[in-house]
Amino acid sequence: MQRRKFIKDTSKAAAIVMMAPSVAFIKNYQKAQIKLGFIGVGARGLSTLYLALRRDDIVVTTICDIDPITIKKALEMIEKAGKPKPEVFTGSDYAYKSMLEFKNLDAVIISTPWEWHTPMSIDAMQAGKAVGCEVAGAMSLDECWQMVRTQERTKVPFMVLENVCYRRDVMAILNMTRQNMFGELVHFEGGYQHDLREVKFNDGVKYYGGGVEFGDKGYSEAQWRTTHSVYRNGDLYPTHGIGPIGSIINNNRGNRFEYLTSMSSKARGLHEYIVNHPQGGPSHPNANVKFRLGDIVTTHIMTSNGETITLTHDTNLPRPYSIGFRVQGTKGLWMDVNKSIYIEGKSPAHRWEEAESYLKTYDHPLWKKYEDQAAGAGHGGMDWFVLNAFVEALKRDEPMPLDVYDHASWAAITCLSEQSIAQGSEPQPFPDFTDGKWMTRKPIFALNDVY
Amino acid sequence: MQRRKFIKDTSKAAAIVMMAPSVAFIKNYQKAQIKLGFIGVGARGLSTLYLALRRDDIVVTTICDIDPITIKKALEMIEKAGKPKPEVFTGSDYAYKSMLEFKNLDAVIISTPWEWHTPMSIDAMQAGKAVGCEVAGAMSLDECWQMVRTQERTKVPFMVLENVCYRRDVMAILNMTRQNMFGELVHFEGGYQHDLREVKFNDGVKYYGGGVEFGDKGYSEAQWRTTHSVYRNGDLYPTHGIGPIGSIINNNRGNRFEYLTSMSSKARGLHEYIVNHPQGGPSHPNANVKFRLGDIVTTHIMTSNGETITLTHDTNLPRPYSIGFRVQGTKGLWMDVNKSIYIEGKSPAHRWEEAESYLKTYDHPLWKKYEDQAAGAGHGGMDWFVLNAFVEALKRDEPMPLDVYDHASWAAITCLSEQSIAQGSEPQPFPDFTDGKWMTRKPIFALNDVY
Repeated sequence: MQRRKFIKDTSKAAAIVMMAPSVAFIKNYQKAQIKLGFIGVGARGLSTLYLALRRDDIVVTTICDIDPITIKKALEMIEKAGKPKPEVFTGSDYAYKSMLEFKNLDAVIISTPWEWHTPMSIDAMQAGKAVGCEVAGAMSLDECWQMVRTQERTKVPFMVLENVCYRRDVMAILNMTRQNMFGELVHFEGGYQHDLREVKFNDGVKYYGGGVEFGDKGYSEAQWRTTHSVYRNGDLYPTHGIGPIGSIINNNRGNRFEYLTSMSSKARGLHEYIVNHPQGGPSHPNANVKFRLGDIVTTHIMTSNGETITLTHDTNLPRPYSIGFRVQGTKGLWMDVNKSIYIEGKSPAHRWEEAESYLKTYDHPLWKKYEDQAAGAGHGGMDWFVLNAFVEALKRDEPMPLDVYDHASWAAITCLSEQSIAQGSEPQPFPDFTDGKWMTRKPIFALNDVY
Repeated sequence: MQRRKFIKDTSKAAAIVMMAPSVAFIKNYQKAQIKLGFIGVGARGLSTLYLALRRDDIVVTTICDIDPITIKKALEMIEKAGKPKPEVFTGSDYAYKSMLEFKNLDAVIISTPWEWHTPMSIDAMQAGKAVGCEVAGAMSLDECWQMVRTQERTKVPFMVLENVCYRRDVMAILNMTRQNMFGELVHFEGGYQHDLREVKFNDGVKYYGGGVEFGDKGYSEAQWRTTHSVYRNGDLYPTHGIGPIGSIINNNRGNRFEYLTSMSSKARGLHEYIVNHPQGGPSHPNANVKFRLGDIVTTHIMTSNGETITLTHDTNLPRPYSIGFRVQGTKGLWMDVNKSIYIEGKSPAHRWEEAESYLKTYDHPLWKKYEDQAAGAGHGGMDWFVLNAFVEALKRDEPMPLDVYDHASWAAITCLSEQSIAQGSEPQPFPDFTDGKWMTRKPIFALNDVY
């Protein structure tokens, strides 16, 4: 039932996308203020809204959601911030399309279930509204191509809001790689290792935990995210791991992902959680659900420059959060799990050093400059930076620092990983979403302290 | 030149193997003392010899090596230990064959260059001498089959001397898995991450470092090990990582490796080392050598029970030593790089605990019992345990705890990894070296405190 509804909804969305007219983006040359709308003000959207309301260069003119409870929360937040009441669009899955016709709107933040990112982004670009889209894996390679082709045709700015690219330690390491501290880069590791069991299941009221419900009986992410764990087996959420690595290796800018293989472990964690939960148990209806998503999905990526990348997707088991970064070159390496660095000639021979002093010394200029403004923002401040980059690039009419090619090559990992697993770990080539432009495009991400 | 010589030598060895007669093993029922010979008393052989000389249940009756310097060291060590002088076999690559005809000899320890392990082990088994063989990857799948078939035909005991299976933390974790502390096991990581640049290159006199020579101009391991980095690209040394994981998952005993994929990064480390070394430089002849071995080789292994294993081979770059273990199940995980454990319901939610107290609580009975005897033995004491297991199993005429099937399935990783890389990471199936016996064989490794 859930699956049929899901397919119906998304194909309907796709059909509407096809019919939508192409609208040229009205450029915001040196705009002082961005009129921003929110498609989706659930848990994630509210957190970005909170940051938007702290900025004088943003006016939130519209919000959209199908959930009246969260609309109410958003309006209260806006009122409390002393900002003008926005137009509200709600009542149907497609209310966002009316919002996109709203004149007093330059750009939208999309924080909706994964399967809506592509149709909504495409509709927004076609309506001439710049897009800052939350991260996700793609449902199909064709989705990635649709995003790329729509952006190329409309020239409307599109940014994928990968906050971990702006994590303080990650940016310090990026800074170190640019100063050749690790030598020629050779190997990377990253991933998404996050016990999401209280995200995938709740009591239908709270955001997190308290029950084993999902789908129609769940609330927030449990309403939709868990369905992907029932039906799909692959690296469902690659961007937090691959985004920062993509920036370091200049992905799509002199380098690109060539192919990957994926392997999936058995799927046990989600079923065990349901069976052992006080609100669950072996006779709970969800104890009969067969989850396809392997508990650990590991992916190897080969780049055209010969670096290798290992990604881990680990969201069904009890464990401390870790992105598991490793950045390794001919002169040394960083690992985040043990918070350590080794640099030949600097570190004592064959011994780790605590990373902390390096991270301070090589703190990225952006963090040095904006540390105070970022303080208190979500996820240790990095959320401030990703929104700031989107808004500053928009105001200056400059290229988006994490663009549609970044999005497509990251999001494609999910589909390619599913395909590889379905074929017993056969290698899968990455499409070149840039049509060869990757050979001559130059790096632009966080080159200075501007944004 | 090196390559041609290498091929010539090994095919000569193979030819002789074929001609050698099959000799039934004379069983050592309840022997009190093992008459032991050493084939190879280089750096590694000497270290095992040192341990053998400390035991009353071993008499070293023979030693064999082509290097007079190391023969001299061995004889001095034996004399210093107050033990009788053994017969010495030397003078040619095949002197070991004369040693195998020696009557006063029950078993041999083989610590020779990798390419000699198979012919020497086979010759020894055919001569009725039990074999304790040092670890290595295989040169071909056929080598693995030869070892298996010879052992099956001769019934002569064969043990692969994988010391890391006896590492104290690894055995404590094995103990924890057997007590279901991590729940159902799902995923593993391990490997061999060891900066071997001063092993692969030296000054032709010292064991380690001081120059950039290898092959004919190198000494000890640099004489032969480095050649594999010139010509081969794969996980050349998988056993330290896979051995302990094999014990935990009951490999070949209810479970087995099904297939793998491998990926190799660019090869930069060894060339850079030569070019930047004070005794090297861009005009040193070895600066022209093209090394094929990728600096980082990552391998995914799928087991028949649905666990996944990621192995890393990392021996060309500056880095602290790490085997990079991770043992993960439905109730928690251990990682050795951050020396941490997380157990659901015991550890504070979403927070790592230091592994140390768990490792003490679950110290393996073998280590509790033999801690004092192992003190001072190589590699933190684990070398004592692996030799002890070989000798105790021999004395009792019991099955070898790490047997020819363990050896074959571990050593095969090297060839399969080479094949996968040569085919752009295509998956490679593991042969079932047990001919189906894996389905009913029972675990025997370190079940108690006997050996």
